[in-house]
Order: sequence, then C-alpha cells, then structure tokens
Amino acid sequence: MTATAVVDLNADLGEGFGDWSMGDDAAMLEVVTTANIACGGHAGDGSTMRAACRAAAARGVAITAHVAYPDLQGFGRRFLEIAPDDLTDQVVVQAGALQAMARAEGTSVRGVKPHGALYNALARHEAQAGAVVRALGELDGLPLVAAPGAVVVPAAEAAGLEVVLEGFADRAYLPDGTLTPRTRPGAVLTDPEAVSAQALSIATEGGVRAADGTWVDLPVRSLCLHGDTPGAVELARAVRARLEEAGVTLQAAL
Amino acid sequence: MTATAVVDLNADLGEGFGDWSMGDDAAMLEVVTTANIACGGHAGDGSTMRAACRAAAARGVAITAHVAYPDLQGFGRRFLEIAPDDLTDQVVVQAGALQAMARAEGTSVRGVKPHGALYNALARHEAQAGAVVRALGELDGLPLVAAPGAVVVPAAEAAGLEVVLEGFADRAYLPDGTLTPRTRPGAVLTDPEAVSAQALSIATEGGVRAADGTWVDLPVRSLCLHGDTPGAVELARAVRARLEEAGVTLQAAL
Amino acid sequence: MTATAVVDLNADLGEGFGDWSMGDDAAMLEVVTTANIACGGHAGDGSTMRAACRAAAARGVAITAHVAYPDLQGFGRRFLEIAPDDLTDQVVVQAGALQAMARAEGTSVRGVKPHGALYNALARHEAQAGAVVRALGELDGLPLVAAPGAVVVPAAEAAGLEVVLEGFADRAYLPDGTLTPRTRPGAVLTDPEAVSAQALSIATEGGVRAADGTWVDLPVRSLCLHGDTPGAVELARAVRARLEEAGVTLQAAL
Amino acid sequence: MTATAVVDLNADLGEGFGDWSMGDDAAMLEVVTTANIACGGHAGDGSTMRAACRAAAARGVAITAHVAYPDLQGFGRRFLEIAPDDLTDQVVVQAGALQAMARAEGTSVRGVKPHGALYNALARHEAQAGAVVRALGELDGLPLVAAPGAVVVPAAEAAGLEVVLEGFADRAYLPDGTLTPRTRPGAVLTDPEAVSAQALSIATEGGVRAADGTWVDLPVRSLCLHGDTPGAVELARAVRARLEEAGVTLQAAL
Repeated sequence: MTATAVVDLNADLGEGFGDWSMGDDAAMLEVVTTANIACGGHAGDGSTMRAACRAAAARGVAITAHVAYPDLQGFGRRFLEIAPDDLTDQVVVQAGALQAMARAEGTSVRGVKPHGALYNALARHEAQAGAVVRALGELDGLPLVAAPGAVVVPAAEAAGLEVVLEGFADRAYLPDGTLTPRTRPGAVLTDPEAVSAQALSIATEGGVRAADGTWVDLPVRSLCLHGDTPGAVELARAVRARLEEAGVTLQAAL
Repeated sequence: MTATAVVDLNADLGEGFGDWSMGDDAAMLEVVTTANIACGGHAGDGSTMRAACRAAAARGVAITAHVAYPDLQGFGRRFLEIAPDDLTDQVVVQAGALQAMARAEGTSVRGVKPHGALYNALARHEAQAGAVVRALGELDGLPLVAAPGAVVVPAAEAAGLEVVLEGFADRAYLPDGTLTPRTRPGAVLTDPEAVSAQALSIATEGGVRAADGTWVDLPVRSLCLHGDTPGAVELARAVRARLEEAGVTLQAAL
Repeated sequence: MTATAVVDLNADLGEGFGDWSMGDDAAMLEVVTTANIACGGHAGDGSTMRAACRAAAARGVAITAHVAYPDLQGFGRRFLEIAPDDLTDQVVVQAGALQAMARAEGTSVRGVKPHGALYNALARHEAQAGAVVRALGELDGLPLVAAPGAVVVPAAEAAGLEVVLEGFADRAYLPDGTLTPRTRPGAVLTDPEAVSAQALSIATEGGVRAADGTWVDLPVRSLCLHGDTPGAVELARAVRARLEEAGVTLQAAL
Repeated sequence: MTATAVVDLNADLGEGFGDWSMGDDAAMLEVVTTANIACGGHAGDGSTMRAACRAAAARGVAITAHVAYPDLQGFGRRFLEIAPDDLTDQVVVQAGALQAMARAEGTSVRGVKPHGALYNALARHEAQAGAVVRALGELDGLPLVAAPGAVVVPAAEAAGLEVVLEGFADRAYLPDGTLTPRTRPGAVLTDPEAVSAQALSIATEGGVRAADGTWVDLPVRSLCLHGDTPGAVELARAVRARLEEAGVTLQAAL
C-alpha cells in the first residue's frame, strides 16, 4: 500500500418505483462516496429520483445516472435486443431526467453507469456499446463507469470520454480479469473478512489473486458495493471500515 | 390591425410512443413557430423526442416541453388526483428528459406547456397549479404557456416566471373569456373561413366576439393549432395563410 | 353474540411488481380467509399473480380479483377520471388475467374487490359504479365486495349480483355508518385491544358504537385487515385470535 | 389442387394502445378467417381488446391470443431474455385477459399465436419454447399457431397440444423450408401476382418452390397475411380473391 491510496465506493440507490422500494438507501449513503441513481429504465420515477438526489446531496455523495434497458418488470436484469439508436435515445432521456432533478436538488450528475443486463452486454456487444458511447457524447461528454476489459471501454476512450473502471469486492475473479460466473462455486464472496480483504487488495495493491493463485491486475478507481439485502449492507460497512483503518482515502472518482 | 402585429403559432408534436404515431408532424412543422413536444407523460419516448427535436431544429421551430399526467393509456386526457409533490417531480423529469434530447439535437427547450387534462386542471386546481410553478422554478425558471384566466397564471407570475398566454382559433369563447364547453353547440369552429377570421382577430385586434356579440379581450401571444386529423392540418394551414396575407409576423413567443 | 356468528377476514395480497414486493403475504395468509389479489392495475404481474394464487390455494384461502385504476406509479391510490367504458374494459381484463392464473393454480376467482381510489370512488361516483357493475355482469356475474352505503351496492344488487359488504376493524365509524375521515383525530385505531374489540363487535353484534356513542349497524359479512406494515400484521393476528377465542367461525364469504 | 383445398387466413389485429392505433382492422376483417388479437404484451389494452373481439365476432372471424414479450415500447419486436417461468406467467395472464374479453363479447379464444420476436425465438430457443408450451397446458390446452420447423412444434405436440402450422404468402422460402432472411434480396414479395400465386401454391399444392427451384413442402393449415400498411391490405385482398377464384375454401383452422 502507498500513502496515496484513494478509492471510490459506489452503490445503486433510488431503485424504487411509486410505492415500492428496494434496498436501504439511508444505510448505504453512510458507506459510499458515489450513488448510482435509477432514472426510469429498470426503476425510478420523478419522486424516487428526487429523494435519492436530495439524500446524496445532503451527504456530499456524488451521483451517476444508472441507465438501463426500459424494462421495469424485469428490473433491467434481462438482455434486450434493443436497436442501437433506440438505446442511445434511452440513455439520453434517462440521464437527462436525472440531470434536471439533480440540478433541482442543488447537485449534478457526474457520470453514467449502465445497470444490470445492459452493464453485462457492454462487456461484449459492440453495437450497444457504441450506442451508449454516442449518448455520452451527446450528454456533453459525461464520463462512463465500466468494468475492466469491457468492449465499451476502448470505444469510450476512442470517443474522448473519461472512463472510471470499477472492481467488485464480493466477486471472485478469474485469471483473465473477468468475474467468475455466478453459476460456479465460490463466485460470490460472503465472508466479511474475505470481502474486506479483497477490497483492500484492490484499493492498495491494484489487483487481487484469482482462485488459482494468479495475480490479476485491476487498475480500478472505484469499488462497487451491493446494498439490496441486510447482509449486503453489513458487508459494505465492513469494507468501508477496513479501508478506513488502512488509511485509504475514500472519495468520489468523478 | 397594427403594423407590429406579431403572433406565435404552436401545436403538439412528437405524440407517438414506440411504433405508434399520432398526427402529421411534418405538415404541422411547416405551419407553426413553436412545437410542444411530448416528453413521456401522455406520449413520447427517447426516440420520438429525438425525431421531433431534430425536425423542429431543422425548421427553426421553437420547442416547449409538453408535460402531462403520467398516463400513456389515457393519453393524459383524464384528470388524475396526483399529489402536488409527485406532480412537481413529474414535470421536472419530463422536461429534463426533453432538455437533454433538445441539447443533443443542437436546440433547447424554451418553455413548458401542460397537456390535456393537466392543462385543464391548471385553470382551477390551486394545488396542482402550485406544483407546476414550483417545478418551473426548479427548471431554472422555464416560462409557462397557459390559458388566460387560469389560476396557474397569477401563481406563475408571483413566482417571477414568464407566462405566454395562448388563444384558440377554432374554439368559441364565452363573454367571460373562457372557452365554450365542448358539450354546447358551436363550441368548436370547423369552417376554415371562421377559424382564420378568429385567428386574425386575436392576432391583430387582441380579442374576439363571443357568440352573443360581446367583445372579449384575449391578450395572448400565441395561438394553439391542432394537427391530429387531416382536416385539422388544413385548418392550420388556412390560419397561417390568412395571417401571412394580413402581414402578421409569425414568430416564436419564447 | 350468537352461536352462529360467522365472518370472513380479507386482506390485500400479491401487491408486488417485478422485483418489488409489498407487505408480508405469507404472514397474512395465516390470518385471512380471503385474499384480494392484485391483477395488474395498481400492482401485480403474471408472476406475482401466480405466487399469490398458489399460496392462497395451498392455504385454502378464497381469492377475489383486486381490480384498480391502471396506475402502477400511483399504486391505484389516486382518483382517475377514467371513462366508464374504459373502466369496464379494465375490470374485465384485470379480472380475466387473474381468473386464468387462478385456474392454472387449481383454484378460482370468487369475486371482485375494487382497490384504493377506485374503491373510494364507488362510494359516490355513479358512472364509475355502473361501469364496474357492467364488468361484473360480463364476468358471468362475479360477486362484488363493497362498503355499506356505497352507490355501487344498490347498482350491483339491481343487476342481480351478489354483494359482500365489509367492515373495518381499525377504522372509527361516524354515526351515519361511514368511516371517519383519516384527517380527523382518532380515525385510525392502532391499539390491538380496541381493534380486536371492534372486530368482535362487528362480527357478533352486527355493528359498532361511533365515537359519540351512537350505535351503528354494520350488516357486513367480511372484515378487511391490513398487512402492509409489521404492526398491521400484528393487529391482524390479534383480531383473528380474539374472534377465535370468542368462538366466531372464520370462513370465506364467497 | 384438390376439390377439398381448405385454408385459414390469419392476420394481426387490435394492435393499438390507448389513443394509438395500428393498421386497418376493419379492412383486414373482411379478408381473414382468424384474427390474432394483441393482449397487452406488445400492444393492446382492455378497450382495444374489446373493439377487436367485438368486430371479429360480428364478422364470424375466429380469435387467437397474440401473446408477446412484455415490451410496449418495442412492440414486442426485440428479443428479451425473459426467464422461462416469467414467460409462462406472461402467456397465461395475457391470454386470460383476452379470454375474459372474448367471453364478454360472446365469442372465445381458440388458440395462441406468439408475436414478433417471441415468435422468432420459438424457432430455436428451447427454454422459451418449453415455457410457452407449459402455459398452453395451463390454459386448458389451447392450440398453438407456429411455423413449420420451429422447436416449439415438437415440444407442443409432445405435450398433447394441437398445433396449427402457418405459411407466409409474401416471404420467399429457402430450400430447407425456413424463410429467407429479410436482409437478403428477394426475401419479401411485393408483387400481388407473385404473392397470390405463392398463397395458392401453398394452399393447393402444399408447398412452394424456393428461389433455386427446389420444391419445399409446407404442410400448413393457415396463411399469415399482413395488414399494417395500405399496400399490405391490398396484397391481402389479392390473396383472398385468388384463393376464392380457385375454389379454395377459406375457414378458420381452429
């Protein structure tokens, strides 16, 4: 570890709709430095956006637009073969809606993080990746949050966009730097000690060891934490505590 | 008529959703100086917003955000007892979505015009009027398009907002300046000559005669035209031709 | 109390949508004899309908279709001036969707209970009441669950429909038999003892005392219980326990 | 041709939503013997279902439920990786809604035809095919309309379901009996003579010649006609006229 270790902690917030809620936003806002706020694709309406923007602003937490396939019923978690042009249009209006609300609450949207199945698709779907990159260009060049190795990363960089790479504290990595598929044993880490240790390794050493012992470089500036279950909130708190104990500076990447 | 007669012609555009369309946007863009573009409440998704913004920009037509109750199935035409706070939030995110798309297309949203049942409600519903006014304040003071006499007008003015009053060329007025209810005979004008004459009277004389002969002052800066039927497009063209013949300057109010 | 006191206990279930859930269905299914299952108006999709139908069938709990205004965002809790014909059509397809799912799960829909703002509107809105009654006729005469005194009651009876009147254990009644508005102090009972006592009085004496001591006849066959908060579940359990202790027979009204 | 040639002509109807409409239902109802009615997945609400059921009943046209991915914005034309269980649930509630409305209009749903991207997916997607088959079993064994060679066909037959195979008059076939992809030249036939001749060949000879001259057996009982453009309606009329001239009996397959 170096004296200058700095990392962003991000989590998904504002994932309700109407009278429905999801996760414990208040708890997660005490842990993270960036909130990815749902903006109408997989979740989120005007009122949930306001509540999340207001709470984030009050805590000094940065905001990204958590754009998604237009699929409330599927919570944006199932792949949709949306036409690239339609996807670009979706990203523009979803992010734009949140930008207006953030401004109304005295804050701003600093970047865009794709959600769920869209996030996964951008790892390999060239056409959808290009569609998202074009949207960001139209949004005055808003930065992108993405996974290392995703095809959207070089596309965004080629378009002159800032890209914030992120890692996962609670997911095992394969030797090639991709996540171990959830279908394999050991893919998801649930032990607070193991999750915290992985977060610290990523934040201070710039990588982790894969299950087979191979060192994996993860040049990420942010760690994604989950908060949609009580146990997840505890894990997130444990990660933050460990990083703070180790003297890591926690601050928004954007 | 005076040499300085100037009026705006506005119409509703971009009222499709997905594969569905409504009205003849191309035809109306040759007639109007302001397009009220649907932004997700009663109609409109990212792609319809882009198409409408692009076409309006290409014709030099100004844009207002056509905000509405969140009711696609009812096309925003039925009253909804939405809580004022939720209405404020809806107006912010609907207008914000359109702002982002307008910017992406090199243009901007110059004002907000409520649609359908919301427009009607703002004539008398104090709480919903206040909700819309608060939204406009949060949208950096976007101007409002409204009907003379609506309770939302003094509320908007008290909040320091610019208000553009509009009249209707194809609706008969009562002596008190309100529209003759559609349930009464003669409420809707369909004769091109009568509609054009009323438009000219409003634009150049600042008012019209009610059915009983009473003079009604209509200090409006814009005329609302309809384009959702073939006949309506013809009427709109007739109005524009008559105004141009009479030397009235047609230009966006905002 | 008489030896033959019998009452139905009903509650709203299946009020999720996609990944969102509402209330504790499992807990309430141990208390009630009838489940009002959301069928796509204010909540509910195919999967929530299946889960609720399956759980109700497993517990031997009767099912009513909990029809509502088409307003997911507002959870059906805000009045909508929907055209009567459109309301009839909504009730038919909402109930029809649930009928198909109930049949798939080896059970059936025994009646229709309007939800939220629609339930309230049917107390006085003649046109909407007529619309619902026509839908029930088209649904082979499904029975209606309604509040005593609502205008929909005589309309349904005139159409030859069976009507199940219901009372509330946790709401104070006015001397005229209507509920004390929520805006007044004492409108909602929260003390388990008071709620249980009111339930018992309705079930065994056929009425309650209003706040001013007036006796109010409530010739109801069902009691509506709430389950959307942890405290509500406790109240519901307390009501059931008191009724059982008193020897009241709990069974579905339909 | 034999003296007993019989074929069903089917087309998609009721594909509006709220105030939006699609295609010319009245014209197509004079051509077809079966109407595939949208039931809330890609299009359709209670009121469009009623209008389509009523019109079909008045013309003696049979009805199938045109089930689809839940994607109004995409009109069900884009693949959705919906979980099989959720797809089963969707098919049950969509078909159930239409069943209730058909019954209200004095008619009935005689089968299920998947729409758009779902129809295409059932050609090869085993899991989604199984999901649809399970839904049909739960719908008391409603018959399925499908394309020859689709993986859903043997799955449905193995489940004991009746399957109506359908062909296309306006699409070129490859030697293996599948449709020529739309991306290839000549994939879509637009000449009324050619389309009518292909319809007649399928109806009376049981097959067509592929572009390379190979004979392709098409043991279908129905021909799918399109009606969403004025030109398509003309083609549909031409097909019907040719079949009638040739003495082919036109009647619903179900």
